[in-house]
Amino acid sequence: MPSNETTTRVRYAETDQMGVVYHANYFIWMELGRVEYCRAAGLRYRDMEKEDGIALAVVRAECEYRRPARYDDEVTIRTSVARANRRMVEFSYELLVGSELIASGLTRHIFLGKDFRPAPLPIKYY
Amino acid sequence: MPSNETTTRVRYAETDQMGVVYHANYFIWMELGRVEYCRAAGLRYRDMEKEDGIALAVVRAECEYRRPARYDDEVTIRTSVARANRRMVEFSYELLVGSELIASGLTRHIFLGKDFRPAPLPIKYY
Amino acid sequence: MPSNETTTRVRYAETDQMGVVYHANYFIWMELGRVEYCRAAGLRYRDMEKEDGIALAVVRAECEYRRPARYDDEVTIRTSVARANRRMVEFSYELLVGSELIASGLTRHIFLGKDFRPAPLPIKYY
Amino acid sequence: MPSNETTTRVRYAETDQMGVVYHANYFIWMELGRVEYCRAAGLRYRDMEKEDGIALAVVRAECEYRRPARYDDEVTIRTSVARANRRMVEFSYELLVGSELIASGLTRHIFLGKDFRPAPLPIKYY
Repeated sequence: MPSNETTTRVRYAETDQMGVVYHANYFIWMELGRVEYCRAAGLRYRDMEKEDGIALAVVRAECEYRRPARYDDEVTIRTSVARANRRMVEFSYELLVGSELIASGLTRHIFLGKDFRPAPLPIKYY
Repeated sequence: MPSNETTTRVRYAETDQMGVVYHANYFIWMELGRVEYCRAAGLRYRDMEKEDGIALAVVRAECEYRRPARYDDEVTIRTSVARANRRMVEFSYELLVGSELIASGLTRHIFLGKDFRPAPLPIKYY
Repeated sequence: MPSNETTTRVRYAETDQMGVVYHANYFIWMELGRVEYCRAAGLRYRDMEKEDGIALAVVRAECEYRRPARYDDEVTIRTSVARANRRMVEFSYELLVGSELIASGLTRHIFLGKDFRPAPLPIKYY
Repeated sequence: MPSNETTTRVRYAETDQMGVVYHANYFIWMELGRVEYCRAAGLRYRDMEKEDGIALAVVRAECEYRRPARYDDEVTIRTSVARANRRMVEFSYELLVGSELIASGLTRHIFLGKDFRPAPLPIKYY
């Protein structure tokens, strides 16, 4: 699947006293990106968890910040799958305000089964 | 039990671009207060949830703000039980920086059993 | 102005280990509601702060919780002005999932000037 | 300066519906670590910002997750300076529950002056 784009508007709660968005919040935006990426691919993450007992545990997260995002900005989150196999998936992200790249990031996830241990992804999700 | 006091230091993440603590975070501090109140009373909330399947669901929360809290301030949370019976408990809170009252609040909770429905509190917690 | 409606989708980050949305996050949703209420009334809050140095400080916030909100739910925030004069404004909120009322709330704000002291709202905002 | 250790107790608000701490919150804990590192070195970050108009802007953040942290766990944050010069500083972090390493991370910061542009750190902070 090609990359997916979704947008979010910066909340007042997401700013800090430097007058810009607090850096940890970019990782929440990446979450929005991958959930919408999955939805566009026909997967509703909520159902995966509920019906098949599969969870996606984050094992690595990183972000490179270029320009601050500010209150009320509309942020576009462009999400792609960088790597994937039956045991893990890696998403990469570009965050933009207008056409300007403000940050780029990556998250790596492993699949966990009902017992909270690593488990291969069921065939039906291929 | 008399009131219990605990402290927390304001995190940078808790401020907003007005240069003060974002108002929703006061409710997180109240949570710290009631957890420590319970611990002082010999109840570890984590164990109540895990061992007896009891959860405390918030049904009402309110806060009155008097003075802003600022980054790096040490905030004292003074917690009391305002009302309690087998079905609900109401905590009241005073938040202070130094000796100055910066906010006061209240949360009301009902007890939920394993099925996530209202349930009376087991006798052993009396 | 009549009430304004805006929606937000529940983020994974907003849930807690009870499997529902953590209660403090409802106050962040109320913020989304009043920002969009103002935008619909022709006021961009960001500009009020930047250009006129006016801030809206929260002096009271309350919420009554009826039903939990869950991950991936689409929440509608219905915002009205309950009371307003030159020194303060009170917003009231109804939060719905589908047609079901899950919570109702209220926030009261005073206007602050550049010096961070209470100030009457400039005439142009009437 | 050698590494500095500080602790924080996992808040209910920091958990998610997987029953563990939401991953973005680890970056907030790293912030607690570097603030206390600075305090131990005789620098109060609040004063740097207020008196000298210096801000530390995050330009990179990363975290490797090994074991989940859970509600009410006491987390130790061990902070060191990995690299530093007049224009930037890089902190590295080890997060532990008891003696077990649950995550490790890194943040890179540049110094910004009053105009919000990169600026070398004043001599007095050397």
